[in-house]
This record gives sequence, structure tokens and C-alpha cells, in this order.
Amino acid sequence: MLTLYYAPGTCALASHVALEAAGADYRAVRIDFREQQQRSAEYLRINPKGRVPALVSERGILTETPAILQFVAQTHPAADLAPLNDAFEMARVNAFNSYLCSTVHVAHAHRGRGYRWADDPGAIEAMKKKVPQTVAECFDLIEREYFVGPWVMGPRYGISDIYLFTLAQWWEGDSVDPARFPRLRAHRERLRADPVVSRVLAMHG
Amino acid sequence: MLTLYYAPGTCALASHVALEAAGADYRAVRIDFREQQQRSAEYLRINPKGRVPALVSERGILTETPAILQFVAQTHPAADLAPLNDAFEMARVNAFNSYLCSTVHVAHAHRGRGYRWADDPGAIEAMKKKVPQTVAECFDLIEREYFVGPWVMGPRYGISDIYLFTLAQWWEGDSVDPARFPRLRAHRERLRADPVVSRVLAMHG
Repeated sequence: MLTLYYAPGTCALASHVALEAAGADYRAVRIDFREQQQRSAEYLRINPKGRVPALVSERGILTETPAILQFVAQTHPAADLAPLNDAFEMARVNAFNSYLCSTVHVAHAHRGRGYRWADDPGAIEAMKKKVPQTVAECFDLIEREYFVGPWVMGPRYGISDIYLFTLAQWWEGDSVDPARFPRLRAHRERLRADPVVSRVLAMHG
Repeated sequence: MLTLYYAPGTCALASHVALEAAGADYRAVRIDFREQQQRSAEYLRINPKGRVPALVSERGILTETPAILQFVAQTHPAADLAPLNDAFEMARVNAFNSYLCSTVHVAHAHRGRGYRWADDPGAIEAMKKKVPQTVAECFDLIEREYFVGPWVMGPRYGISDIYLFTLAQWWEGDSVDPARFPRLRAHRERLRADPVVSRVLAMHG
């Protein structure tokens, strides 16, 4: 039995959708960010980074979305969520997911979490101001170069679709116009209509 | 035959060391960042992100350090650079590598590449100022919580050691005192003395 710690509005949505899509035996525990529960002593024992997602398994605790996504795919091969038997295709998936975590998510984080990288309130404001541009440029690149269609990697749906969908939830909040990315917007609509995804989204509401 | 595009002083060192450690059939091509070669039309056809590393294989082009590291490990199993047959252990490796790319490398990047996240020169200065603190806190966490010893993951040397070593090259440049992390500092010394690592370091000099 796995336990996923998540908070609404965070990238933990990706791990949650993946667990549900995999038919995993898991329970989900909601962490209240408004109450700063992620910084409580109790939660820091689970994830010393004070962030979500965290996935507790019998063998230990995993963090970081790309790692959890690959783990869920590998431990639930019947769900066919990743090209497990092809190192090159798996590397394409990981390159995409790595770009999402290290560049796209980070661009977004400068809107609400600028204090991580500067103390000066003016600097934090300046970061916030650039977010619509930097986030839009990331998704422009995905739309133009990396989204194969109909799914991110081509003919097969998988963990990169789930992760892309998760970060695409933030467009409007980041003042990014979805009309810039017709293919990514259509992809987001398709996933929103998916029964597994909408079930999980309802829990994050 | 693989081709690695790299530049000295960048995280491409990790992919380079991994290829060398794996005994891969590859050549390395140096990109001149001072001449902005990473933004040339020719290089952008290889990596539209305008960054290194990029690894050209017969099947296509891979980017992003965590993806390239896992790919090198998977395609060279005899080198034993990752726990390929254990999904949980592999997820631990990927969680560690994901933290390096999405948090540690990003903390460092605010010193020299603040223009990515703000336009105001004062804001860019403010980011630079906080780098010694944010980078040190990342490595404090690794020293305290994630470095098992004698290698990152415990008894087996692997891609997480190579990646950690790569980012540990930046301590002095980021005004971070290595004495804060006795275990990580000893790890860095051990890797510097490794013949494979020192061969690659010489090429990056």
C-alpha cells in the first residue's frame, strides 16, 4: 500500500493521476499549505524538503515528480504508462519530464515563491512580472519542438502527458494565454475530459 | 557512435564522465559559450533550448542531464552505473538527480543567469546576493539527509555520484564554504582523484 502526500494546486497532481491511471493500491493524504503543514515537524520527517509530492512505500519514501512517475510506471507495467523496454524512448520521456521540473515548473515558481531566490521585495516583484513571458516561452518551445501528437511522445499516452497536463493547469494563473498553444490546449481539454483525470481533479478541488 | 555536445564549467561534465565511465563509443564536441555558439542557428538545430548537454545518437537527440545519465547507464549495463533491475532503487537515484537539476542547479543559476527570471538589474543583483545561502542550504540538506555514504546511494557508485560531483564543482564560485559539508567534500576529493573523472576534467580545463 502506497501513501501519496499532496496539496491542491501543486505538481503532486501528476503523481496522483499516475497512481490512479495505474490502478495502484494507494491512499492520498492532503497537506494543508495554507496552514503551512508542509513545514510541520511531522511532515518534515516524511519529506525534509517540506514539499509535495511524497510517496511512502514499504521500502522507503520517494520524492520528486519525475522519479515518482517513472516508479509508478515501472511498478505497474500493465498500465503501459512508459516505454519501459526501450532505453532511448524512456530517455525521451525523462528528458521531457526533466525539462518540466527544472525549467517550466521553476519559471512558474517565480510568481509565488520568489522569496526562494531573493530577499528584496522589489526583486520578488520583478520576478513576478516576468512570469507570463518566461512560462509562455517554455510552452511555446514544447508546442513547437517537443509535442509530437496526438500525445506528447507520439502515438502512446503516458507519464509525460500526465505531467504536461499538470503544469498546464497553471496557465491562467500565470497570465499565459492558452490560445498561443493550440495543440497543447487541445491536449489539456482531452485530458480534462478523461474519467481518471477528472476523478483526481475533483479530489484536488 | 554517440556525440556529446558540452561546454566547460557546465553540468555537461556529468554526461561526459558517465560516457567515459561506461566505456561508451562516443566523441565529445566542445561548444564555445563565450562566442555564444549555443545560440547559433547550427547548434539550435541540435538543441532548440540553446543549452548543453546534448547527446546525438543514431535514433535521435537527447537533452537534460538526468535523462542522459539514465540512458548511458541503461545502454551500458556492464558498467553498473545504476540499479537497473530495482524500480525502487532506481527511483531513489532519479529523485536525487531530479533534486539536483530542479533545485540545486537552479539555485546556482541565479548567480550568472538571473536575466532568465527578471529584467530589472537590481533584481538580478538581489538574486546573485542570495546564491551563497541558497546553494549552501541545498548541499546542507544533501549532507544531512540524502548522502548515505560511502557513495550517494550507499555501497554502490553510480550516476548520482557523478552528477553530485559535477554540481560540487561550483561551490567556490558560488562563495560556498566546502567545510560545511565534510562528507560531500570528502566525496568530491575521492572523485577528483578517480582516473576516469580526472581524464574528463582535463578536457574541460
